[in-house]
Amino acid sequence: MIQEELGKRIRELRTSKTGLSQEKFAHKIEMDRTYFASVEAGKRNISITNIKKIADGLDVTLSELFTGL
Amino acid sequence: MIQEELGKRIRELRTSKTGLSQEKFAHKIEMDRTYFASVEAGKRNISITNIKKIADGLDVTLSELFTGL
Repeated sequence: MIQEELGKRIRELRTSKTGLSQEKFAHKIEMDRTYFASVEAGKRNISITNIKKIADGLDVTLSELFTGL
Repeated sequence: MIQEELGKRIRELRTSKTGLSQEKFAHKIEMDRTYFASVEAGKRNISITNIKKIADGLDVTLSELFTGL
């Protein structure tokens, strides 16, 4: 399922590129912490505007975010 | 706005890669025609599962779909 693959990818990039906790990263991009946690857990059918917000926070393009998915 | 950029990109790929009308392409991927038309018009905050459905219908990866956005 694409939600799960995307969630794993976001977690991978958050840890490798920012080193921030879920809480600190969610705060940085002004996203609700529990919502962000459920996105990483693959539980959300996330919308394009929130995907873009996360990509911007990870400092990657959308194309980079989806590499390999 | 990312919705508009994505809509334009989808239209570009639909016409260049499939040559199908909006109606025929929406039918092919089993998506409501008016919903698909509003996605191309940049009027929808489309979800990841619908983005994946469109990418599959265009026979491109998500990374390719977002190239340049």
